[in-house]
Parts: sequence; structure tokens; C-alpha cells
Amino acid sequence: MRNHEPRASSSCAACKLLKRRCSPSCIFAPYFRSDEPKKFAKVHKVFGASNVSKILNEVPEEQRDETVNSLAYEAEARLRDPVYGCIGAIALLQRRMVELQVDLAIARARLARYSAGSPPILNDHGSIMIPTLAELPACGHVPSQEFRFV
Amino acid sequence: MRNHEPRASSSCAACKLLKRRCSPSCIFAPYFRSDEPKKFAKVHKVFGASNVSKILNEVPEEQRDETVNSLAYEAEARLRDPVYGCIGAIALLQRRMVELQVDLAIARARLARYSAGSPPILNDHGSIMIPTLAELPACGHVPSQEFRFV
Repeated sequence: MRNHEPRASSSCAACKLLKRRCSPSCIFAPYFRSDEPKKFAKVHKVFGASNVSKILNEVPEEQRDETVNSLAYEAEARLRDPVYGCIGAIALLQRRMVELQVDLAIARARLARYSAGSPPILNDHGSIMIPTLAELPACGHVPSQEFRFV
Repeated sequence: MRNHEPRASSSCAACKLLKRRCSPSCIFAPYFRSDEPKKFAKVHKVFGASNVSKILNEVPEEQRDETVNSLAYEAEARLRDPVYGCIGAIALLQRRMVELQVDLAIARARLARYSAGSPPILNDHGSIMIPTLAELPACGHVPSQEFRFV
């Protein structure tokens, strides 16, 4: 007798991987298309299907797409870097921000000298002296290098 | 007969929550002390004990402490914000970086005018004109607002 069950190809990527029937009310189906098997595989490997399902049920339907995107990003980062995951990206961005804040403070300190009509201070090589950190005006909060919520 | 099993209080926070005996080779014990029950509870809720154990087994012992810290940070972020988790922090840092890069480019464009000996351009109110974005020199890569690896 011919099998009239929906063909496997109509299942979403999650149900395919979990080897279960994909129902019309499947929580994963709208976000894990059958032609994107890796997306679910990564999220499942890091968070587990059950936790992903719980998180999706917890957020409003209109935000589930964004939720899946952020979970997929985090999972990808953790698989690439099991030690730091996407915290590595946060630490790098914080370091770059501190560098930019210092560069901006230096530029503003030099501008302040020009605006005040003072000639720039030249060093022995005729180049403009860069002020030391202590001479710099405050340039906003400098985030710590530790992990923290921003 | 008196129970000579180790007392529950000697179990790590993970084994306590999972209601299992904590063995001397417990993978969680060095990183989830019995007096930090919330740390493991959060990590377990987001990643699941089994996935955390797999990740810890995958990384060298000397990096497990950092691994647990980053997992705890991610879990905390996901519980606070189920939609974006720590990706929210990345997006915010990227926005702040773009703002800083624009501020730095503006300051450098003004400095370049001073250095070239040109007086600053004043607007109708006598204030220094701020150059438009098109007039600004390149100031490094400006990250997109989309989630991306840095």
C-alpha cells in the first residue's frame, strides 16, 4: 500500500534532523526551512532543540525570526570558538572602542590647542607632539576589558 | 543504617541541580561551586547540561574556566533578553563604534584644515562648519549594522 504521509521533503530542517513528523503547527518550520539544514543543526548542537523551542515559545511571534537569527549567530560563533563564542566578538569590539576613544580624545586635544590659538607643540623631529593620556580631556566612559553588559 | 554516601553539600552546583552524585572526576565541579547554584542553573537553562559538558570536554583544561565564564555571560544575556541575547550587546557596540568613527573623522577633517593653514569654515552663526560625511577622509572599516563576525 502506498504511503500517503507527507513526504520527508515537506518537513522543516528541524523535523528532518530530529526524524519526526513536521506538523502544521511545528514551532520550528517557519524559521528552519528544509533547504537550510545546517542552520538548525548548529543551533541544535549548541542550545538543543528543546531549549530553542522553549525560547521561541517565550517570545512574541513577530520577534521569533530575529530570535532565531541571533541564536544562529551565537551557535555559529560557539562552534567556531568553543572557548569564547560570541563573547570574543564583544571583547574585540570593546578593545576597538577604547582605541577609537583614545584617538578621538587625542584629536580633540589637538583641536583645542588650535582653537585656543596656541601653536602645536613640535617634538625634536618637527612632528606635532601627541598629548599624554593624562593631558587628554574626558571622552566618555571607557568600558572595562572584562565581559560586561552594555 | 547510617548513610555513608558523601553529603549533598559536597556536591557541585551542577550535580546538586541534576540530583546526581558528584564524582571526583565530575567535569562541572571545578567551575560550578556548590555555593553558586544560579551560575549553573542559568547555563543549564540556556544550553543544557549535556551541551555544556560536551563543550567543556572539547576545550583544553586550562581554558575551561574562561569557557564557563563566557557561557555564563551568554546564558545571562539570553535570559535577560530572549530575543537578542548577547547579540544585542554586539549590535549596540557596533552602533557606538560607528558613532565614534564618524566623530573621529570629523575631528580629523577639522585638524587637516588647521594643519593646511586654512581658517575653519564658519556657518551663519559663527560656529565652525561640520563637514558632511562625503567630505570626510576614510577612517577605517565601518561595520555594518547587521550581525557579523568581527
